[in-house]
Amino acid sequence: MVEYSSNARNMRSSEIRRLMKLASDPSVISFAGGMPANDLFPIEIVDEIYNNLSKSVKQAALQYGPTYGYPPLIDSLKEYLRSRGLPLEGQSLLITAGAQQAINILTKVFIDPGDRVITESPAFIGALAAFNSYRANLSAIPLEDDGINIDLLEKELDARSPQIKMVYLSPYFHNPAGIIYSEQRKKEVLEMLSGRPHVLLEDDPYGELYFDEADKPLTRPMKAIADASIPICYIGSFAKIFGPGLRLGWLLGPESIVEKCEMAKQSMDACSATLSQVLTHEYLSGGKLAPYLSRLRPVYARRARLMLDALERCMPDGITWTRPRGGFYVWLSMPSGADATEVFNRSIARGAAFVIGSAFDPHGVNNNSMRLAFSFTPEEKIGKGIEIIADAIKETMQD
Amino acid sequence: MVEYSSNARNMRSSEIRRLMKLASDPSVISFAGGMPANDLFPIEIVDEIYNNLSKSVKQAALQYGPTYGYPPLIDSLKEYLRSRGLPLEGQSLLITAGAQQAINILTKVFIDPGDRVITESPAFIGALAAFNSYRANLSAIPLEDDGINIDLLEKELDARSPQIKMVYLSPYFHNPAGIIYSEQRKKEVLEMLSGRPHVLLEDDPYGELYFDEADKPLTRPMKAIADASIPICYIGSFAKIFGPGLRLGWLLGPESIVEKCEMAKQSMDACSATLSQVLTHEYLSGGKLAPYLSRLRPVYARRARLMLDALERCMPDGITWTRPRGGFYVWLSMPSGADATEVFNRSIARGAAFVIGSAFDPHGVNNNSMRLAFSFTPEEKIGKGIEIIADAIKETMQD
Repeated sequence: MVEYSSNARNMRSSEIRRLMKLASDPSVISFAGGMPANDLFPIEIVDEIYNNLSKSVKQAALQYGPTYGYPPLIDSLKEYLRSRGLPLEGQSLLITAGAQQAINILTKVFIDPGDRVITESPAFIGALAAFNSYRANLSAIPLEDDGINIDLLEKELDARSPQIKMVYLSPYFHNPAGIIYSEQRKKEVLEMLSGRPHVLLEDDPYGELYFDEADKPLTRPMKAIADASIPICYIGSFAKIFGPGLRLGWLLGPESIVEKCEMAKQSMDACSATLSQVLTHEYLSGGKLAPYLSRLRPVYARRARLMLDALERCMPDGITWTRPRGGFYVWLSMPSGADATEVFNRSIARGAAFVIGSAFDPHGVNNNSMRLAFSFTPEEKIGKGIEIIADAIKETMQD
Repeated sequence: MVEYSSNARNMRSSEIRRLMKLASDPSVISFAGGMPANDLFPIEIVDEIYNNLSKSVKQAALQYGPTYGYPPLIDSLKEYLRSRGLPLEGQSLLITAGAQQAINILTKVFIDPGDRVITESPAFIGALAAFNSYRANLSAIPLEDDGINIDLLEKELDARSPQIKMVYLSPYFHNPAGIIYSEQRKKEVLEMLSGRPHVLLEDDPYGELYFDEADKPLTRPMKAIADASIPICYIGSFAKIFGPGLRLGWLLGPESIVEKCEMAKQSMDACSATLSQVLTHEYLSGGKLAPYLSRLRPVYARRARLMLDALERCMPDGITWTRPRGGFYVWLSMPSGADATEVFNRSIARGAAFVIGSAFDPHGVNNNSMRLAFSFTPEEKIGKGIEIIADAIKETMQD
């Protein structure tokens, strides 16, 4: 009886939601959720921070704050971003409700229905949902081992320049592909965008989670090396380096763009949760991040190793996968024509889950692939889970 | 160089932002901010709740939760809503980042550019910002002492039925008008909407803050008395009954509508801050709300009394104001032609602030009025602040 907007009519209760629900059964060995394991959260640090807050800061934590963010957190976050080589001059910072909100706000600010966004393929499911919710058209450019296919990117930029409004890239330990861009590829992308009006969304929730200190230079953001004429909106998140439940991310971008984003955010939720911001400020300014990351990195490295070893041991010929040097994910590819949903159905029946590839295809079609997250699964269950999935793949391929 | 969306081009850095910034100077006696005073927050209760959380609940508080909300909070909130007479059968609940996000999501789900929303005049500034950000057209129906002008509402509904998508009302201790709807007016509104396809947004952030127990029956939501055929989305908030810094509100509405809203929220911020939700669940389920409200109500009643007494004492002839029986606000009207911005400029120079009336005019024009919030101002400063504003009004009227 009620009549929905075009935006809402475009939203569909997807197959993915059904599969994710199945995967959340606690008896299932799940590689589905892209999240930290609960036992890795720095509970003792939060306790210590909370109990050292003064009464007036606790009061501030329960009060509205400015839309752009809690001022002390803005300061400590600037300090952190400076230490990662990011430029702050002529740039503004906006605290958002996770990186998801930053992506959503930028889409609101740049996309009219029918405008075009260039994304990698595969791409982050949350970004795709935001783009679709504003009825953007998507150009999906294949991702290779060292980054986006640069020739196809150039071709698309040349062919559809007037319709293209944003280029969305996630160069560091990509979700879902698990790869990291080479220095060379980052430079090529920046050269290609130079002089064009397109905004680059550089999404970086996992860059700090390299396994090997030697790879740290690879995580240097494009925004840190680009010349200022390219409008880059650098998006980060505290989800993977503190806790996703705080729902905090940020957007660092040219002042004029961030001003528009701040207005959009004001009409969305007025400000981000102040209590979360207070705790995060104390976490950053109290020097808690670096030791926490030092504790996390070997844990995720070990989980990735266990998963890669199991894949090597169990997977049949014709199956390939990425070998991540950081982050949360392995991306597994089956021969063309194989259907990850069939594999999922067989696999979940025996107690293991993952996310099917079509969830990350900008056009929702290609499904001969899957995302395996090693971040959440207890170490002793990783081998068994991969075994189940390998068996399901073998059976599906025999049919 | 970059090209913004039509939505973003429609956002303007407003005069209001400049005035609010001036009003936030701590040396100013401010009746501008629509928020609780910091010293009223239940810090001891939050301390007690936090320190009694188990380790596993603290871990859950740092983790993603379902988009619709933290399941224990959904249960305790249902219990609370049931106690206020609200129907839950056939209805779904969505936890949002404040009532602001609930309004924004509903606008996204129902409004295409050019669709029409009926609002009261004056109306909540945050709702107007959300409607404008989706380029809705607004029909502004005058508010009277006992609710929206029912004849004009009927006329507008009849005249523009196909374009109208939502009716937005805030019946209980209205922001900014301070009035509460009579029983009669609520019934008339419901009769008028019966059989029409328009969705009613019933926004209720202040209903619990009646000054006199005898007025409690007036705060019974329309959703509690309406027949289920009218699609009512009932919006509430923990901002005024716990703390706005937690950024939590909710939406109770027909299942099919809330399902669309959940999908929209997923693409906006994935879920609301889990830590805030954990604390709020313990607050509700631990029976902390009722005693806190018993403590708050006489405080706000006293502040309102002090403001009304000062207005009576200081204001010149020709000035009228509402006499709130709850909530945070007095709405003051000057003769037509008077300009609240002029009064503001004179008043701020002497150290008192308020929000000019045009901020709450759906069309941003009428400015012979102002909103005076008594919620935030220390009692001993209320009289002095009103005196300053009265002097500024007298001077402006003499010019």
